[in-house]
Order: sequence, then C-alpha cells, then structure tokens
Amino acid sequence: MLSKSNIKRITGLHQKKYRKQEELFVAEGIKVINELLESSFQLEAIYGVERDSLHIPEEKENTFEQITQAELKKISFLKTPQKALALFKIPTQVDSKHTGLTVLLDDVRDPGNLGTIIRLCDWFGVTSLICSAQTVDCYNPKVVQATMGSLSRITIVYTDITAYLEKEQRPVYGTFMDGDNIYASTLPEEAVIVMGNEANGISSAIAQLVTQKIAVPRFGQLQKTESLNVATATAICLSEFKRGYTIEK
Amino acid sequence: MLSKSNIKRITGLHQKKYRKQEELFVAEGIKVINELLESSFQLEAIYGVERDSLHIPEEKENTFEQITQAELKKISFLKTPQKALALFKIPTQVDSKHTGLTVLLDDVRDPGNLGTIIRLCDWFGVTSLICSAQTVDCYNPKVVQATMGSLSRITIVYTDITAYLEKEQRPVYGTFMDGDNIYASTLPEEAVIVMGNEANGISSAIAQLVTQKIAVPRFGQLQKTESLNVATATAICLSEFKRGYTIEK
Repeated sequence: MLSKSNIKRITGLHQKKYRKQEELFVAEGIKVINELLESSFQLEAIYGVERDSLHIPEEKENTFEQITQAELKKISFLKTPQKALALFKIPTQVDSKHTGLTVLLDDVRDPGNLGTIIRLCDWFGVTSLICSAQTVDCYNPKVVQATMGSLSRITIVYTDITAYLEKEQRPVYGTFMDGDNIYASTLPEEAVIVMGNEANGISSAIAQLVTQKIAVPRFGQLQKTESLNVATATAICLSEFKRGYTIEK
Repeated sequence: MLSKSNIKRITGLHQKKYRKQEELFVAEGIKVINELLESSFQLEAIYGVERDSLHIPEEKENTFEQITQAELKKISFLKTPQKALALFKIPTQVDSKHTGLTVLLDDVRDPGNLGTIIRLCDWFGVTSLICSAQTVDCYNPKVVQATMGSLSRITIVYTDITAYLEKEQRPVYGTFMDGDNIYASTLPEEAVIVMGNEANGISSAIAQLVTQKIAVPRFGQLQKTESLNVATATAICLSEFKRGYTIEK
C-alpha cells in the first residue's frame, strides 16, 4: 500500500526543485528500468504491479514494493502507465577532463530534443555532454523516457558554459547560417560542438567563443525551410565528425 | 459567433475519418497559417481572435471569421491555443513520376517523427515522400504543426508501397543492422530510401524489395544503443546521399 506521503513525494519528482532536494529521479516501464538497473545508477525504490520481468539484483530485493494498477496510475507521469516505476539516485556531478568529441548545449529546452541528443551521443561514442544551466534537466521524466537507457552511458554536466568554453583548449565548432560548408570542412577527432536553443540558436555571448563556424547546406530550389530541428542538426554534425573514423565494417 | 455544428465539424477534423470525408485539415498559429497561405494549399476558412498579423489574400477575405479566445479554445487542438486556426483543403493525390531522391516510409507511426521527416525532405531538396497506408496521416494536426510549413513544398503520396517498389527502376536503399557501411558506399543521385517503423524497422515483405542494404555504423565502446530514432536516421541518410552534391558554398 502506498502511503499518501509517499505518493506526494514521488509525484513531486516531476519538478526539478524536488528532484534536486531529494536527489532522486523517476524511470518508468520495464525496459527503461531494466537498462538503468544494469548501469551504474543506484536504485532507491521500485514499484511494480508484477516483478517477474524486472531484473532487480538480489541485494536490492528489499527495494521492491508490489502495488496495484490503480496505485501506479497515481504516481505515474505517463498517459498510459507501464507496469513499473522506479526511483534512482541522481549521481553527483564529477569534474573530469573531457577528451575526444564533446557536445555542448546552449539552452536546449525541449525534453524530447535533449533525449534524442543523449541517444545520439551514445550512438556516436560521444561520452560527455555539457549543458547550460537553462538547458532542460536531463532527469526530467520525459527526457529519461526518451533516452531509452542511454542516460546511463553519457556523462552529463550542467555548468556555466561561458566559463567552460573560455578554458577550452580544443577547437569549438558551432552551426550558423553563414558558416563554412560542413561537408567541405576537415573535421578533427577532438572538438567541442555547440548546439543552440530551438528558437534562437546559439546566443551571441557563446557565438564569440566559437572558433569554427560551420553550416549544414540547404538543398532544393525553394530554399524556404527555416532551419533544421536541433536534434536532427546534431545527428548530421555528429555523423560528419565521425564518418572518417568508422570502427565497424 | 461559432455555431455548435461548426465547432463539432472543426473538432471532428482531429480524426482522419472526418478529414477524409470533409477533405479538410486544420492548421494553427499565425506562423504556420501564413506559410500555408503562401503555398498552393487552398484556404477554406480562417478563425482568428485578431486578423492583423494574418496574410489573408484579398479574394479570400470573406473566409475570415473573428472569434473570441474562449471560442478558439473550443476548436483548438493545442494545449495553449495560438491566435488563429485555419481550415485548408486536402489536395488531390497526384500520380506523377518521381525522380532524384524519394523517401519511402514503411509504417512510421509517430506524428512528431513524420513532421520532422517532412522538414528534412524539404531541407535536402527531396520533393517526393511515399507513405504506406499505415503511416500516420500527414494532415494529422500534430504533423501539420511539426512541419512548420514544409508540408506545402513536398509531394506526399499514400499508397501500396509493395506495388510502388515492385515497379521502381531506381535502386532501393534501406537501413539494416547488417547493411554495408553508409560512409563507405558510393551513393547515387537517383534512389529510393526506405525508412522503417519505430519499433519493428523495415517489414520483411519490404526488405525483400530493398536492393541495397546499408547501415549507419555505431561508435563508442559500449555498443549498447539499440537503434537510432527514425527521424535522426533519416537525417543522417539524407545528409550522406546529398553531401557530394552541395550547391551552396
């Protein structure tokens, strides 16, 4: 039986304020939960209408609580609640040196876009993602659901991106309408790639710290498409940076 | 004043059945409506809380109806209704010959993905998009909003994709985990690119009609990311097909 105070505590985690306070985030659905259970994330509690398909490690068995579908509905963030909901500890942010490719987000606001970008980083072997303080929280339930487990494989750091870029030694790439054709550019193995806000692109303060302005050329005769969505632009940029270094056949 | 029957008719357009019956679709927001007003789409009716920012052509002035914010809320599909809602005629599907690059969707179900793919086609100069009958309707309000006007610049055909591919002369590309590295392939100017369903990928019946199996290689050491989202995979494929034919600097 879920107590009223517990329901309140879990649904409160929808808000960043309470996630920060409790240092917990919510994951839903057997698939996402099982992926996170295999990762370095620490399980705090797990609520399920059944436990058979959940891969709960033995030492964490006491964190499982059997609930009814009606109770799950009370704590779920999803329109169609899945069979389980789990709480994981938000890891402490570590200040490590980033090498290779790093993606840096200048105020990306849409949870779906951030989730897609995290999956793309995972796919392309980008292990560090730097986010401005105004970028949507990666522990937002919508982001957690959209990442499909990739969240556990990327180091995500929220920081003052101006200060971060000022100290950066690697070349800093950013996409601008008047940038150099990305397809004709020789792209390095080590770099920071800045992606901007959905509506406003890269802010002028950050633009000044970009050392290499690039552009994804637009094709077609009408030339009216205003811009690429930030997630698809990230896909194209990462593909271009990595295509020369294929490790699979 | 909006009549009850009119409200019912407009909200009914949320459903494909009624869109088909009425041959109308809904667009919302000044920006999207103005983009469609500039296109070949035919305006049927336009409801706005103000008309100043709407670029209604003179001969269509009689289609404008001033409504209140409360009335707009009754007919809007958006959580936060914009200032106007318009009805446009669904164009008759034309059977024309497709040349250059054509994207073909095998049961893409998510409106956001279809909207993003339409924008990508527009960006990369792909003028024809072929959809299986089970692919989400491109006149679904969520798709219309996501395309940001690109909808008017792409020829979209819903058809029996098996029959379409059986008659196709161009090479048919499709992405598969065991396909050839797309980065190492010489890609032609004329081709059909098949993109599959979000959960199941390309169906086996369609896979048999694919003449060139390609893959976007996965990077990183963990190699756990299951798959790319269909919209980001489309972005990478179109970028690869087009990168050799840059027309801008």
